[in-house]
Amino acid sequence: MKLSVVKIGGNVIDDPTQLDHFLTDFSALEDHKILVHGGGKVATRLADELGIETQMVNGRRITNDDSIDIAVMTYGGLINKKVVANLHAKGSEAIGLTGADGNLIQSNKRPLVSGIDFGWVGDPQFVNAKFLHQLIQSGLVPVIAPLTHDGKGNMLNTNADTIASCIATAMSTDYQVELNYCFEMPGVLANPEDPTSVVPIIDQNQYKALAESGSISQGMIPKMDNAFDALAQGVATVRIMNYSELESINNSSYAGTIIK
Amino acid sequence: MKLSVVKIGGNVIDDPTQLDHFLTDFSALEDHKILVHGGGKVATRLADELGIETQMVNGRRITNDDSIDIAVMTYGGLINKKVVANLHAKGSEAIGLTGADGNLIQSNKRPLVSGIDFGWVGDPQFVNAKFLHQLIQSGLVPVIAPLTHDGKGNMLNTNADTIASCIATAMSTDYQVELNYCFEMPGVLANPEDPTSVVPIIDQNQYKALAESGSISQGMIPKMDNAFDALAQGVATVRIMNYSELESINNSSYAGTIIK
Repeated sequence: MKLSVVKIGGNVIDDPTQLDHFLTDFSALEDHKILVHGGGKVATRLADELGIETQMVNGRRITNDDSIDIAVMTYGGLINKKVVANLHAKGSEAIGLTGADGNLIQSNKRPLVSGIDFGWVGDPQFVNAKFLHQLIQSGLVPVIAPLTHDGKGNMLNTNADTIASCIATAMSTDYQVELNYCFEMPGVLANPEDPTSVVPIIDQNQYKALAESGSISQGMIPKMDNAFDALAQGVATVRIMNYSELESINNSSYAGTIIK
Repeated sequence: MKLSVVKIGGNVIDDPTQLDHFLTDFSALEDHKILVHGGGKVATRLADELGIETQMVNGRRITNDDSIDIAVMTYGGLINKKVVANLHAKGSEAIGLTGADGNLIQSNKRPLVSGIDFGWVGDPQFVNAKFLHQLIQSGLVPVIAPLTHDGKGNMLNTNADTIASCIATAMSTDYQVELNYCFEMPGVLANPEDPTSVVPIIDQNQYKALAESGSISQGMIPKMDNAFDALAQGVATVRIMNYSELESINNSSYAGTIIK
């Protein structure tokens, strides 16, 4: 059985017209499917309006008590339920979930890193693949927010790319999983200044070369690492593409970059 | 099969210590169970902090665009996920849901009432009992926020007592359902000034008499109407009790008021 795990980031979420268009394409995907969404700027905007300052240590963002409440409200509440309600209007039987719901993803609260306490941030340790499998087999479309829990009563902020990767990996025992990272770029670029320089297929060696030359940097590095991790752990295909090209999955054209 | 549908209101939710104690008792219930929670003051507090004024028409609260976003954030996000994470820590396999998730409850947006547009408020038309049944049979404990959807992409604010009543009714085809309204009072009072005047059992005639004498008024009226509706539609038992007495269900003692 085929399963598409699709991840969308903040830029799409922040634009209602683009989000609606994306969800139409997502809803039209023929295979079993799971959507993982990021946070977008709603959380930052809400924190600003409430006068809550982002706490930074050595340039790294800290998830303190206020920040985790805002993340749970916006990612697990507002964004997740708007996407779920929208998908139902398009005929998809969506169900919104955080990692706490049905114990979908249990995480360890991140230990000190170089002496820095990142606060309520979680690194996934367990994915309840059986539960997801049951939902999918009932015809439901899981919509997953970037939040997990620690099993001790606390919600944890968790990177959405990481969630997509570990969900895809966990489901690859029962499904032929295609993991699709959708974002604002058209794919992995050989020249970051040139949007037409999409690398159609990339392997570890090419990735290393592009990373060393500086063509792949910053935000792309953890995304690529997540992608190679997922492949190494049984995911059939990983693709990085623009969110407007999701429909290309159905007609088997090759938008974006295939990671292999 | 027995099923307990338990509803808690805002006063419990606003007090972390009482909420934790209540969730310990809820988690210990032996039957299949469903929790429906109200909103509490978090939404009002958040609206105040954001400088969003509660819109009132003829003394009735209106759910405008801002209010529904705040309800979705606080009821569907913060409160729902905190309860879910807490229940997992107590060994209950909780899953948080709004009416949009799995199309659990579809509502009609309320039409004009005496010329007043109540905004994003929904009156339930359909409960997906099959979906709830599947979750319960998988060992999950549904935790339901007072939000529904209209099937057209919109989330709707919905009274938590009404949700508890219509969930209990829908489940009574497959289960012997006990509907428990837990709130800050010890039960239905013959004399509202005297907390020891709990009426242990009440029927329609006694209710009418107490309503006419003014002993039952205001907030209790819709609760009682919901209770009698549920009974008329197949719910086995309806009880109104203090949230600290939930454990009495397990030992078959008779805290609060039985509606019959």
